Amino acid sequence: MAQEFKVTPWEVSGIVDYDKLMKEFGTQPLTDSLLERVKKFAKGDLHYLFRRKIFFSHRDFDWILNEYEKGNKFFLYTGRAPSGHTHLGHLIPWIITKWLQDNFNAELYFQMSDDEKFYFKEELTLDDTTRLTKENMLDIIALGFDQKKTHFIINTQHAKIMYREAAKVAKKLTVSTAKAVFGLSDRNNIGEFFYTCMQSVPAFLPSILKGKNIPCLIPLAIDQDPHFRIARDIIPKLGYYKPSILHCKFLPALTGPDSKMSASEEQTAVYTTDTPETVEKKIKKYAFSGGRDTVEEHRKLGGNPAIDVSYQWLTFFEEDDKKLKRIYEDYKSGKMLTGELKEILIQKLTKFLKEHQRNREKAKKVLNKFILKD
Amino acid sequence: MAQEFKVTPWEVSGIVDYDKLMKEFGTQPLTDSLLERVKKFAKGDLHYLFRRKIFFSHRDFDWILNEYEKGNKFFLYTGRAPSGHTHLGHLIPWIITKWLQDNFNAELYFQMSDDEKFYFKEELTLDDTTRLTKENMLDIIALGFDQKKTHFIINTQHAKIMYREAAKVAKKLTVSTAKAVFGLSDRNNIGEFFYTCMQSVPAFLPSILKGKNIPCLIPLAIDQDPHFRIARDIIPKLGYYKPSILHCKFLPALTGPDSKMSASEEQTAVYTTDTPETVEKKIKKYAFSGGRDTVEEHRKLGGNPAIDVSYQWLTFFEEDDKKLKRIYEDYKSGKMLTGELKEILIQKLTKFLKEHQRNREKAKKVLNKFILKD
Repeated sequence: MAQEFKVTPWEVSGIVDYDKLMKEFGTQPLTDSLLERVKKFAKGDLHYLFRRKIFFSHRDFDWILNEYEKGNKFFLYTGRAPSGHTHLGHLIPWIITKWLQDNFNAELYFQMSDDEKFYFKEELTLDDTTRLTKENMLDIIALGFDQKKTHFIINTQHAKIMYREAAKVAKKLTVSTAKAVFGLSDRNNIGEFFYTCMQSVPAFLPSILKGKNIPCLIPLAIDQDPHFRIARDIIPKLGYYKPSILHCKFLPALTGPDSKMSASEEQTAVYTTDTPETVEKKIKKYAFSGGRDTVEEHRKLGGNPAIDVSYQWLTFFEEDDKKLKRIYEDYKSGKMLTGELKEILIQKLTKFLKEHQRNREKAKKVLNKFILKD
Repeated sequence: MAQEFKVTPWEVSGIVDYDKLMKEFGTQPLTDSLLERVKKFAKGDLHYLFRRKIFFSHRDFDWILNEYEKGNKFFLYTGRAPSGHTHLGHLIPWIITKWLQDNFNAELYFQMSDDEKFYFKEELTLDDTTRLTKENMLDIIALGFDQKKTHFIINTQHAKIMYREAAKVAKKLTVSTAKAVFGLSDRNNIGEFFYTCMQSVPAFLPSILKGKNIPCLIPLAIDQDPHFRIARDIIPKLGYYKPSILHCKFLPALTGPDSKMSASEEQTAVYTTDTPETVEKKIKKYAFSGGRDTVEEHRKLGGNPAIDVSYQWLTFFEEDDKKLKRIYEDYKSGKMLTGELKEILIQKLTKFLKEHQRNREKAKKVLNKFILKD
């Protein structure tokens, strides 16, 4: 039976069939031969998020590589819509973005869309999202982005440059098209319609700031793709390159692989600010298990890594392929119990978060240096 | 037979029945007793645009006067959407705004909505409207506004403060409501929908800047009223006073009283930059006449001031009531011919424009001092 699923920039539900989604969205698979080309430019091995095809789909990434080969460097653009604490799922596109920055020596423009969730969530004020913006920026900086090459664009704070350019996009976008792409209706507010224009701007703003047309590469989770279907249609009409996109899959919610993590549902996610105790408790209590009902059955029949969230999370966070393979085999064979698997994940995340939280503290001192001069 | 007419912020056509329009829009007549109250506060006589009921309608103007009486002063807000040269029709709300500033010692926030016509006119770029903004500002300054109390808000230039506040309005405005109020459809672009949020901001921005809730009075031509039907609904929800409005009638187009002047149709308007020769030529050639077909007939039956554009224009520009009455009687009786009436108007406008153009030149030196600090 075909699983029902839904992927929009504001809602992800059901078990996502990524092959089907690529067809629906009209994106291309990130093939081995494309990844081989990336590897040629990389300083070391391919990033594990590439190796594991967690980044799995793209638009015009081949073109970006062609241009790079010709000496025409690209800049990176990704973003965050503050609505709550950063959770581990948010980090995935940023981790690959950092890797791309390091390996391709690329400038990064990082949009903090403090207007987006304000428009879409009744209860959020702009003061809330402004406060969350700063919190979230710490998590981004903590990942180790190059201060000299990383520039935060905060939509309301940079509105002087942002609004003027967003207006140019808005003029070329009808309500009718926005309805078709996003499933919005007349009952939606005007901010919800206008917002996508703001999201499109950083894909060409650096070309304006630098006074020359520069290719743009946008790593993102695939739910954000609809924004760039619009942007890719309109931006060339403004005289700039059509941005290229790299899409990643969603880190499954702790409570099960049939939904995206939500910053507003605590039990579905691990936050970057969670203490080791909280991480342990959440994983032990909520992490959906692919194990059997009894130890005996598990030993006999083995677990199911395909639906086990702890195992799935390890594919997103355990860099070592061999270690991951061993875990997979041990769990599948029944040699490893769910409790043991969870323990591995707890150790991994605790270690990751300890360092992240240390870097996050340090980030407070340099935060302002990362903000684009306006 | 009932005349068909249409009044929207973007189109005025047909012979406007102002009584009917007030009913349709749900505004109140500017009564003699209200004007008496204004006169009490004024330094001298009422302004002729009040005396002649060219300002004829309002929303909550009585409330503004009540507050003023209690010592709660208001600020003024009006605006201009640059799309071409300033024509004489544009000046009318500004003339009364200056009078109100002088007599009520009021701060004025003057919006230059350089985004508006960009959204609504396919051929205009933002660079065009930015250039026209400066041109138009000279005409406003030339009218003699108090430099210390007058602050231009330029939508794109002040977007840092404007966008954040416009977003708050946008969140409370559905596409459905904007369609109902403005007659927009799904084929309109998103900027055309968003724009009204920008127009609403100066009605409460001074309360933010000054850190206290201040009543707002907006003199405008009645075609702009729909924007403020929305603004008056939403602004109190943001915690600020509902703005009060004063509406004026339209200066009729030179070519006839059945349409508004258009900055894009040269023969319908006199521009503030027109030379005396151009003014003379335009009025002689285009000014719609209420005279008879022959001199004999005219002498016998008299002219019709009600449809004669030269006479109508004099009601907007000749301050002297007695002089105007004499012209009316002489023209109506047939004593004055259309050519003579036109000559009076030509003299009046030439004198007015000579001074205006001199002031306009001087304004170039002080323009920047009038712009709100951002």
